[in-house]
Amino acid sequence: MITGKNYIGGELSSNSFVSFKTFNPLLNIENNISFYEASDNEIEKSTKLANEAFKIFKQVSSLERSKFLNQISDELELIKNDIVNVYCSETGLSEDRCKAELNRTVNQLKSFAKLLIEGNFQEVSIDTSIPERKPIPKPDLRKMLMPIGPVLVFGASNFPLAYSTAGGDTASALAAGCPVILKSHPMHAGTGELVATAIIRAAKKTKMPNGVFSNLNSKGIEVGEKLVNSHYVKAVGFTGSLSGGRAIYNLASKRDTPIPVFAEMGSVNPVLIFPKKLKNEYSELAAKYAKSITIGSGQFCTNPGIIISFDTEIFNLFKNKLVEEIEKISPSCMLHPNIHKSYNDGVENIKKNKSVSVLTKKQIELDDNFPNHVISSVTANKFIEDKSLQQEIFGPCSLLVLCKDQHEMLNVIKSMEGQLTGTLLAEENDDYLTQEIINALELKVGRIIFNGVPTGVEVCPSMTHGGPYPASTDSRFSAVGINSIKRWLRPVSFQDFPQNLLPSELKNNNPLNIERNINGITTREGDSLFKI
Amino acid sequence: MITGKNYIGGELSSNSFVSFKTFNPLLNIENNISFYEASDNEIEKSTKLANEAFKIFKQVSSLERSKFLNQISDELELIKNDIVNVYCSETGLSEDRCKAELNRTVNQLKSFAKLLIEGNFQEVSIDTSIPERKPIPKPDLRKMLMPIGPVLVFGASNFPLAYSTAGGDTASALAAGCPVILKSHPMHAGTGELVATAIIRAAKKTKMPNGVFSNLNSKGIEVGEKLVNSHYVKAVGFTGSLSGGRAIYNLASKRDTPIPVFAEMGSVNPVLIFPKKLKNEYSELAAKYAKSITIGSGQFCTNPGIIISFDTEIFNLFKNKLVEEIEKISPSCMLHPNIHKSYNDGVENIKKNKSVSVLTKKQIELDDNFPNHVISSVTANKFIEDKSLQQEIFGPCSLLVLCKDQHEMLNVIKSMEGQLTGTLLAEENDDYLTQEIINALELKVGRIIFNGVPTGVEVCPSMTHGGPYPASTDSRFSAVGINSIKRWLRPVSFQDFPQNLLPSELKNNNPLNIERNINGITTREGDSLFKI
Repeated sequence: MITGKNYIGGELSSNSFVSFKTFNPLLNIENNISFYEASDNEIEKSTKLANEAFKIFKQVSSLERSKFLNQISDELELIKNDIVNVYCSETGLSEDRCKAELNRTVNQLKSFAKLLIEGNFQEVSIDTSIPERKPIPKPDLRKMLMPIGPVLVFGASNFPLAYSTAGGDTASALAAGCPVILKSHPMHAGTGELVATAIIRAAKKTKMPNGVFSNLNSKGIEVGEKLVNSHYVKAVGFTGSLSGGRAIYNLASKRDTPIPVFAEMGSVNPVLIFPKKLKNEYSELAAKYAKSITIGSGQFCTNPGIIISFDTEIFNLFKNKLVEEIEKISPSCMLHPNIHKSYNDGVENIKKNKSVSVLTKKQIELDDNFPNHVISSVTANKFIEDKSLQQEIFGPCSLLVLCKDQHEMLNVIKSMEGQLTGTLLAEENDDYLTQEIINALELKVGRIIFNGVPTGVEVCPSMTHGGPYPASTDSRFSAVGINSIKRWLRPVSFQDFPQNLLPSELKNNNPLNIERNINGITTREGDSLFKI
Repeated sequence: MITGKNYIGGELSSNSFVSFKTFNPLLNIENNISFYEASDNEIEKSTKLANEAFKIFKQVSSLERSKFLNQISDELELIKNDIVNVYCSETGLSEDRCKAELNRTVNQLKSFAKLLIEGNFQEVSIDTSIPERKPIPKPDLRKMLMPIGPVLVFGASNFPLAYSTAGGDTASALAAGCPVILKSHPMHAGTGELVATAIIRAAKKTKMPNGVFSNLNSKGIEVGEKLVNSHYVKAVGFTGSLSGGRAIYNLASKRDTPIPVFAEMGSVNPVLIFPKKLKNEYSELAAKYAKSITIGSGQFCTNPGIIISFDTEIFNLFKNKLVEEIEKISPSCMLHPNIHKSYNDGVENIKKNKSVSVLTKKQIELDDNFPNHVISSVTANKFIEDKSLQQEIFGPCSLLVLCKDQHEMLNVIKSMEGQLTGTLLAEENDDYLTQEIINALELKVGRIIFNGVPTGVEVCPSMTHGGPYPASTDSRFSAVGINSIKRWLRPVSFQDFPQNLLPSELKNNNPLNIERNINGITTREGDSLFKI
């Protein structure tokens, strides 16, 4: 049952009179349940509780934290049907999409549970002492990564499960040993509460400290602002718009004690198409990209928003085919009227732009919250001149950028900001595909794809989901994959510590049997190495 | 020969009329040579050159970069005598200190050269494809860490070699594949130029691209500000004061495209002393700490500025002995009249503070720029009340904080800001040494020491030199040890890339024979793993 209340640790709470409702974009009506804005008191209580919980939670063994994460996945599976119902009513997305996203969310939790047992993530390093060294003896130094403290996570509008309440940020933070305060996304507060309930149940069953997780509702920006400014909060994870992410980053860096923010803020994900590939496959590519641009109604951070190629006969064929294919695809409902409106505004700006030609012509009468698919084109030099054309339009549209030659293509790449992904559609032996172009693209992106589509972010250790600003606020981290845990860990060194006061990870006898680097050698050996 | 000019890449340049001189604090006179402030044009040229050099330098193999770093150490050894002369004339520090610091600097360069050959720092991870996976095939994903771009490094006043021109920030950035623009510290611009000459020589001999290193002089803050705002600069390394580090952090986070700043800003490095230890060794501890507080005239970021213990008879003995020992030590020259003045101002504030008792009485007539050693004391509750007492006084002084009981000691720790180090002086079986106290201290620091002194930062992989703000701007990184390279690296993933277009590190056949993680297994194997 959804109550509309906040979870302050394990307790449901609503002491504000301000409430809001979620919206069913498919039916174009408000949903029934009222959600109560978190009050100042609830903000204070949840963050303070997280701070208290942290002291206990950071001492909880990796094995126990692993059980907690697995229990969350179990609890989510148990309420799968409820989640599907509420998810669909709050997003307009399909049941299949919901199930796939839930599956992904569960797998993310399990992958961190597995990481915790394998134990490599602490990066344990031990350099033993050299008492006889001159002029001064070398001390014994042992280092491991420790949790940074309570993490504030903002739910994302476009992934109510995988990038929200129990999504990648939460899973990685809990795995690291950091309590999580979740600022629920107002568009799917019901889904958020259901998932939060699963987390709270799991926390209770596995005896985690109260305050290891809280879930706060809010429609406006004030609750988020107050949370970012809480001195109990030690780091922030965010997935969403550039304006939202930057505002949080600005607040966090203006604090008396600044805190790290990892904000993934989307991008236009440039796709470069080369002639030989087009010649062989223009028709298949057009079909593939029509699908990639419109999947999830284009509401993906990795949506291919810019397609760059050469102004040739063969590209004309691709262009026409892309328009034909995308007009064949039935529009699908967007997440919310506000998102639909933003999309329409973006498209209107494109249409008003004199440098841009809109290629899709079909303007069909659509239900509310259903968007028209839009393909437009512009010359490379106009694109370089007009920075507004680089701004992400969140939805099912893409802009074709036509270059005269390789030099112009290179300039287009150089003119672009940081991106989550960059894609090359090419035959390996295409003369136009130079190392210079590949290198220029690589400098701009977190992930570079050969002959694929940028949509679809595989969850595996080798994934980077992030990139140079504004794709993310810190290109040194990833929001997806087990290494995303690094965002919430800091190294602590222990010098000349007695065995009985060291954390288990650093004791000679390696009681947790984890892989460690001892004097430069990676090993699971324990005592034997220290008795020389 | 020192010219007073800037190095814009490999070229000496001075096109500003504004100049300054360094100061010999021991003789209390200006040195002879004029140094020319970097002009706007020189700032623009050096950063642009770094950006151009980056495109080449990032492609230079790890082996070649390793040779470059080793060559820098060789060049430094060759001009050792010149360095000693200039160093001593610009710092008032001893020849022995200079030689030890040079030795450390050379070893840092060599440790990165070694890291580059061992090759683990790229964290190569490969997840091969599963074409038959349902519902969608798993792509091939390969990830490695890549250099972030040109790094701006600020020289530190107190370590003209180890934390300046060819110091840890520069060595780690060059090792990462990032060109360095060095904002030389104005107090030792001559030492800086000599070291820069060695780097430039090494760059030319090992055929590194022009612009891989530049050295800019400036006495004021404007040049530094302009450099932080340069759009060619992608990250900043800084060691110095809280006000300086925070100003740089603020500028960097207000940029249109924010960039990461790692600023190490010192701390007061609390030392907790427990009764049993005092009982056994109060006299030895007093002698040891008198030395640690005064070494290098107290001008270390790890100087023990706060000593916390219980107000007991035995602590009184320690206190008196500490005062006696520190008054026996002859004061040594400070780095600069300005630093001496800041120290005196800090000491005056302590003296004026009604809660504080100054224990050192001897006020000897000293030469200019020589500081009095100062020990003072305060009760725990006054210390907690008055935040000004937590501010670092850069120089040879320490404040004793007297607690009534463990509870008060815990509150003192909790009241403190982030620290580079925290030290426990204790017998393991001291009842006063509770896990709660150790845990509380650990939360505040980057390094925790048992029965030692915080001064002396061992260069080894298990060292953390950093800590929660304000010890550093980002507790997730260290300024010392091979892992400091992580500050300048970002992950890039390659999806479904053909072998011939992949970087060598990611090719199936592992031509560089580096350790890689392939489908979860750490291995140096190549082709054989991919032919299944």
